[in-house]
Amino acid sequence: MQPFGDRVVEAVGRLGPLCVGIDPSPALLARWDLPDGPDGVRAFGERCVELLTGAVAVVKPQVAFFERHGAAGMAALEAVIAAARAAGMLVIADAKRGDVASTAEAYGDAWFASPLAADAVTVTPYVGVGALEPMVAAARRAGGGVLVLTASSNPEGRAIQQAVAEDGRTVERAVLDAVTDLNRKELATGPAQRLGSVGAVIGATRSPEALPLPAAGGVLLAPGLGAQGATAAQVGAVFAGCPAGSVLPSASRALLAAGPAALRAGADRLQKDLAAVLG
Amino acid sequence: MQPFGDRVVEAVGRLGPLCVGIDPSPALLARWDLPDGPDGVRAFGERCVELLTGAVAVVKPQVAFFERHGAAGMAALEAVIAAARAAGMLVIADAKRGDVASTAEAYGDAWFASPLAADAVTVTPYVGVGALEPMVAAARRAGGGVLVLTASSNPEGRAIQQAVAEDGRTVERAVLDAVTDLNRKELATGPAQRLGSVGAVIGATRSPEALPLPAAGGVLLAPGLGAQGATAAQVGAVFAGCPAGSVLPSASRALLAAGPAALRAGADRLQKDLAAVLG
Repeated sequence: MQPFGDRVVEAVGRLGPLCVGIDPSPALLARWDLPDGPDGVRAFGERCVELLTGAVAVVKPQVAFFERHGAAGMAALEAVIAAARAAGMLVIADAKRGDVASTAEAYGDAWFASPLAADAVTVTPYVGVGALEPMVAAARRAGGGVLVLTASSNPEGRAIQQAVAEDGRTVERAVLDAVTDLNRKELATGPAQRLGSVGAVIGATRSPEALPLPAAGGVLLAPGLGAQGATAAQVGAVFAGCPAGSVLPSASRALLAAGPAALRAGADRLQKDLAAVLG
Repeated sequence: MQPFGDRVVEAVGRLGPLCVGIDPSPALLARWDLPDGPDGVRAFGERCVELLTGAVAVVKPQVAFFERHGAAGMAALEAVIAAARAAGMLVIADAKRGDVASTAEAYGDAWFASPLAADAVTVTPYVGVGALEPMVAAARRAGGGVLVLTASSNPEGRAIQQAVAEDGRTVERAVLDAVTDLNRKELATGPAQRLGSVGAVIGATRSPEALPLPAAGGVLLAPGLGAQGATAAQVGAVFAGCPAGSVLPSASRALLAAGPAALRAGADRLQKDLAAVLG
């Protein structure tokens, strides 16, 4: 399997950078005339895959909306992930997992070597990026990616993410630097590849002037396109200078709320808008 | 349902403060002669419940070790949670979940109103404690608890957790203060109760001199007893002055690695050691 970052660059080159969130919330299930249960979330996800095949390269199921139906919901997630991968899409499981190293190893198994296996998983770094290295190792073995929550758009996250560590760096900067270091080492020692297997999640409405995003050396996932207020132009500004194919702006509610009949056209339109602003 | 904090105080008064982690890692499954699959993790958990009934009040399944077997592993977790609750134990799902508010609401459904429902769930606050309030609301509705990862024992977590926010507080202090505020409001407005529904996770090997733990107003979960190096005496020192019944020191590998035949006696011994140091 090719490394994750290079698979993203290739897929974005083919279909464009848009990542579509698969978020079967109670409100969206109702809007799609689907029942709020394991069958409903599965049908929602499979319908997204059908409608978006050939239009988007990457989908991002939000794990919480499956987990809220317990193990049966997680079985629905397995089916949706399998359907998306069978359709040639890359799948980012938006799970925000994270724990100390012995537990992180188990999460690595879950998201890269179990029936839930996806192409990448999002993680949260409160215990330190270093503690998550077993997940990075599992990702690399599988040609997968680990996307580290770095700078979120929500106001409640600012105090923590902009706190200043002993060495003078903000938390978000230190997290991004740790991501960058992991990629630098991977690119220096591995076979020739364009991007490393570790990425960062950067809210698309953030204006992270102080963050050296173009140097990260991995995929940058940017949730918040549309519903959370970010425009394609804003995305272009925040990620200016990043390598071609490395930025994945993600839209969920903004696209899904218009119902299934409008999904494909909405995705096509966003792809066009994004193509105009991202290399 | 009585509020979570008061249920903990009552249960600890009956059986003692020890919380036993249910961690069916590959190594421990082998040690217990169980297969590394969904059936194995279920048998491991159910065996822990049988052996510990009447000896410990609280168990803490580590969700990652179930999730590593996909949806079938999560079904095993549902069975283990149900068995523990049927045996009268309180169950803390050690899930370290956390995301922005709309997603946090879905995690609240998952851990308090789905077949996975537990008595409490651990959460991680990188997006801010405020973003997690929908999980707190779901917990309160169910008489459950939300335990916020505040100060972890692992060295990789220090830089983030001791970073200093704009108002001069460390991240871990700000997180603890947010927990304290949520409990203060709950205790001021709700019916008479001893502890609020929001707790903090404080590594048992930490020496958080700067953290006003006795004022938190909620349950304090302290993982790391035994294998991660914390002794009962250390726990007594770190949590000196905390309300009776509010501290749950947790042991996992240290107890489980000796095999099932030694589990009950090991738990009895730890209960006795802890009784001597915690009010």
